[in-house]
Amino acid sequence: MEKNITVILGDGIGPEVTRQAVKILEAIASHYHYHFHFRYALMGADAIDKTGSPLPDETIEACLNSDAILFGAIGHPKYDNDPAAKVRPEQGLLKLRKSLQLFANIRPVTHYPSLQHLSPLKAALLEGVDMVIYRELTGGIYFGEKTISEDGQQASDNCVYSISEIERIAHLAFQAARNRRKKVTLVDKANVLETSRLWRKAVKAIGEQYPDVTLDFLFVDNAAMQLILNPRQFDVVLTENMFGDILSDEASVLAGSLGLLPSASVGNGGALFEPIHGSYHDAAGKDIANPLGAILSAAMLLDHFGAHEAASKVRMAVQWTLENGFVTKDIDPVNFYFTSTIGELIADVV
Amino acid sequence: MEKNITVILGDGIGPEVTRQAVKILEAIASHYHYHFHFRYALMGADAIDKTGSPLPDETIEACLNSDAILFGAIGHPKYDNDPAAKVRPEQGLLKLRKSLQLFANIRPVTHYPSLQHLSPLKAALLEGVDMVIYRELTGGIYFGEKTISEDGQQASDNCVYSISEIERIAHLAFQAARNRRKKVTLVDKANVLETSRLWRKAVKAIGEQYPDVTLDFLFVDNAAMQLILNPRQFDVVLTENMFGDILSDEASVLAGSLGLLPSASVGNGGALFEPIHGSYHDAAGKDIANPLGAILSAAMLLDHFGAHEAASKVRMAVQWTLENGFVTKDIDPVNFYFTSTIGELIADVV
Ligand SMILES: CC(C)[C@H](C(=O)O)[C@@H](O)C(=O)O
Ligand SMILES: CC(C)[C@H](C(=O)O)[C@@H](O)C(=O)O
Repeated sequence: MEKNITVILGDGIGPEVTRQAVKILEAIASHYHYHFHFRYALMGADAIDKTGSPLPDETIEACLNSDAILFGAIGHPKYDNDPAAKVRPEQGLLKLRKSLQLFANIRPVTHYPSLQHLSPLKAALLEGVDMVIYRELTGGIYFGEKTISEDGQQASDNCVYSISEIERIAHLAFQAARNRRKKVTLVDKANVLETSRLWRKAVKAIGEQYPDVTLDFLFVDNAAMQLILNPRQFDVVLTENMFGDILSDEASVLAGSLGLLPSASVGNGGALFEPIHGSYHDAAGKDIANPLGAILSAAMLLDHFGAHEAASKVRMAVQWTLENGFVTKDIDPVNFYFTSTIGELIADVV
Repeated sequence: MEKNITVILGDGIGPEVTRQAVKILEAIASHYHYHFHFRYALMGADAIDKTGSPLPDETIEACLNSDAILFGAIGHPKYDNDPAAKVRPEQGLLKLRKSLQLFANIRPVTHYPSLQHLSPLKAALLEGVDMVIYRELTGGIYFGEKTISEDGQQASDNCVYSISEIERIAHLAFQAARNRRKKVTLVDKANVLETSRLWRKAVKAIGEQYPDVTLDFLFVDNAAMQLILNPRQFDVVLTENMFGDILSDEASVLAGSLGLLPSASVGNGGALFEPIHGSYHDAAGKDIANPLGAILSAAMLLDHFGAHEAASKVRMAVQWTLENGFVTKDIDPVNFYFTSTIGELIADVV
């Protein structure tokens, strides 16, 4: 296998966790005689500092010409509290998603029994939690027309969806459900939003092509509650961009630590893999961030390449570190290992 | 004290829980020699069945001419899965909120230690949880222009906010914080949405008028996580309509039972009090629903009338039932009391 991988280290803890993921991919490549060509590109606050743009053209170019993208994290606190900022790191990621038509963000949420002590939820609720969230990523309120009136007194964000945008991700969700517990839950706000009614109509129609999969519906407010009250009920959760942003971060509490969760964003062209945690500047440069989210994202990348054996090797190695107490500071603030040490350990055993 | 109260029983379990709240208000009135005039009005699925409209003009009229509204719940499953329905029960509530300019929805979230066994969260996290959510209720994506293309292929919902809409609820939130732990957390998505950036700018400016109150900011995805990971950090949570809908239902898991949570919706003109649970049709007509959300909403109504002693009498009675095992089926599925029995018990002791 020969593949080109664009690596975007990004901001905050992005670089240090992504470097561990690259280490693992290199170890896997040498073990399986794969050829991975890594090419580094800029995005986010880092890119703004170096080039003035949150997504330089060369980065889009590199991404378009690669088989997958491995990405760290984006964002910098200096932009967050400045409502007047002209450029923002996040614009880079949003534009990249749109340019590559990465319309489906896939976030598996698994519970790790060895992390139960860290979870805010009671153990009995978490046993057997195993869901995957399919979040639409290139439409909705993120990308509709935005306005700010000349006098600065009024602003707007339009949420727009077309049937075809809904259908393409609905197919992915139903296909995923087929290989799982055969249930799709559409989360929307169809009692209030016109776009949600379109989602309900379109997803129902697609559902008829998958008679072996059960489809049910939840309003987003109820879903936010059910995720915590009864998380085992969920198999595949399908939802629009903004609801998916909120629910997938909320669902991360089920895993026991945000630092562990990987994600894949796929579409017509490229495929991007990133941990769901953010840039977390407080920890940046200290070699204490949890690299497992990035490493498990690399496992999803391997799956994407069809290298399932290698992917499961990585997952088993991750499991092994957790079960044997080789964990970062977020998991054990007293007896902890450094980011880079965990990366080396896993690279050694895969 | 002489007051006119419009009672809207609504749908599902709405009527049976609201009747208990009326019972309590009658008991309070007789104890304190208040004069409460109750006038019943229709809204929701019930109103559609009886009049064809989810909010008949007489209901708006009655509400405009009363000092407060006591409301049960709204909604019927038969509309939820019908994306083509022309009228919907929810339209009644949305129109009422808009007509009366009920721009602030206030939801206190308190943890009841005697319900800890019901909570999905570990006890250590919940101790001392005491927050109140200020959700904007008459703007945002709920009320912006909605479109559906002629061919039914595309839909949109516009989210619009003006500075003045933000300022009026921000003042209420800061004032509330002054009487509490002096902290306001604005929840938005300012890294993506223009409306959120307007919120951040406007709320920051208002915050300068309240130098004794700390203001901080959270992105909504992070807030959805923090509510579960570290709920004690919150005092007053201020947010826009849709985020507030999601977060306040999510926060309800902190109380131990959705059935217990009250809310008030206030504005320039009227004031409406309702439990946050919905119409829950599965339990309707069985005398098993929890009336405490409705009864605690009546307590908020009493506070609104300045009858603080009476309000705290009601709250203490509620506390007493919980601590002595006088609870409904949602709280104890084996040894439970009926909705009406709990209502009578509380009416007897206030
Ligand atoms: C950084 C931000 C724009 C982004 C989003 O909201 O999509 C992030 O929260 C995510 O979920 O990937
Ligand atoms: C019934 C529905 C329209 C309503 C809302 O979304 O505002 C409800 O969920 C609420 O929170 O009061």
